[in-house]
Amino acid sequence: MKQNKLELIKEYIEEMKTIKSELITNKGNFVNVEQYKIKLNNGEEIIREKIRKGKRDGNAVVVLPVTEEGNFVLIVQPRVFTEKGVTVEIPAGYIDEGETPEQAAMRELIEETGYTPEKLVYLTSYYQDQGCSAAYNYAYLALGCKKVSKQKLDHDEYIRYFECTYDEFKELIKQNYIVDANSKLTLELSKNYLKK
Amino acid sequence: MKQNKLELIKEYIEEMKTIKSELITNKGNFVNVEQYKIKLNNGEEIIREKIRKGKRDGNAVVVLPVTEEGNFVLIVQPRVFTEKGVTVEIPAGYIDEGETPEQAAMRELIEETGYTPEKLVYLTSYYQDQGCSAAYNYAYLALGCKKVSKQKLDHDEYIRYFECTYDEFKELIKQNYIVDANSKLTLELSKNYLKK
Repeated sequence: MKQNKLELIKEYIEEMKTIKSELITNKGNFVNVEQYKIKLNNGEEIIREKIRKGKRDGNAVVVLPVTEEGNFVLIVQPRVFTEKGVTVEIPAGYIDEGETPEQAAMRELIEETGYTPEKLVYLTSYYQDQGCSAAYNYAYLALGCKKVSKQKLDHDEYIRYFECTYDEFKELIKQNYIVDANSKLTLELSKNYLKK
Repeated sequence: MKQNKLELIKEYIEEMKTIKSELITNKGNFVNVEQYKIKLNNGEEIIREKIRKGKRDGNAVVVLPVTEEGNFVLIVQPRVFTEKGVTVEIPAGYIDEGETPEQAAMRELIEETGYTPEKLVYLTSYYQDQGCSAAYNYAYLALGCKKVSKQKLDHDEYIRYFECTYDEFKELIKQNYIVDANSKLTLELSKNYLKK
């Protein structure tokens, strides 16, 4: 990985790192929990708890953008509960009401990076925490990406982005800058596709 | 996939499927949420919510067991918030207080399946929901597994297990019996290792 690119990433991390964290309350506003009594077909009764996000299951999309030149577009953002407080990831976001996963993928990609792809390739889909949540994620590879606009971020979103090579992507995983299941699984599944 | 193996899996699913689900309360006992006010180094203040499980972050292990003969050991259990209500997965569980991830992996494997490995190989580790949680998962490949005991399940755990081939594992993913990020990522990362 080129030294100046790593320096840039470290600058972004420095810029968005947590300097103070204060517990306000033991109740979520966006994240809530529902408790269910479940009867199974074997006659047993079990209690299970379900995480809800904004009164919904929290289905999401994750998108690995590849530019026309074959570079990956990655983002850097505050993830305040992780070790560094800031992580490198692939673009991702919740699916809005009435949106298809594909539409959400296109929207999140342009909002978070300003890039738009020629073609969206479905890779896989999965539960991220199947014991306590119905949240289901859809992973895509976005091919032929071009920078077409500025980012369109929410008022409380702080996201930086940068382009990198395939080897640099793997290096960022190895060096623990990329630390999430979505990015790791999507990279693995895109390997076969990108070889073609 | 052999017809009688698929029939066995379907029987397990039938046995453990949900027949009644009732919302008891909008409050979790095991799962809770904490709300934080966070000051970032860029001067901005953001609110973020953190999922807690049993007053802890919910760090977990996932283990892909491979027998001496080269078969995989998979489990079937109620996952009441998923589409089928029952899923096929690789063994997994929360890390207990004072336990190392390796110890948790060995313990969960023997509890859920009664198998024990010759060798545990670390594959990767990752946040499963880095926006709302500090839960960090460790994935292992358990090589040279042997059935040495009965299962040791908690009072509210219902788990069946079976052996299958590598092709059957992939088939179960394709047919949406295996639907979770942990199992999918672990299989992908074990590929390189198993080829050696």
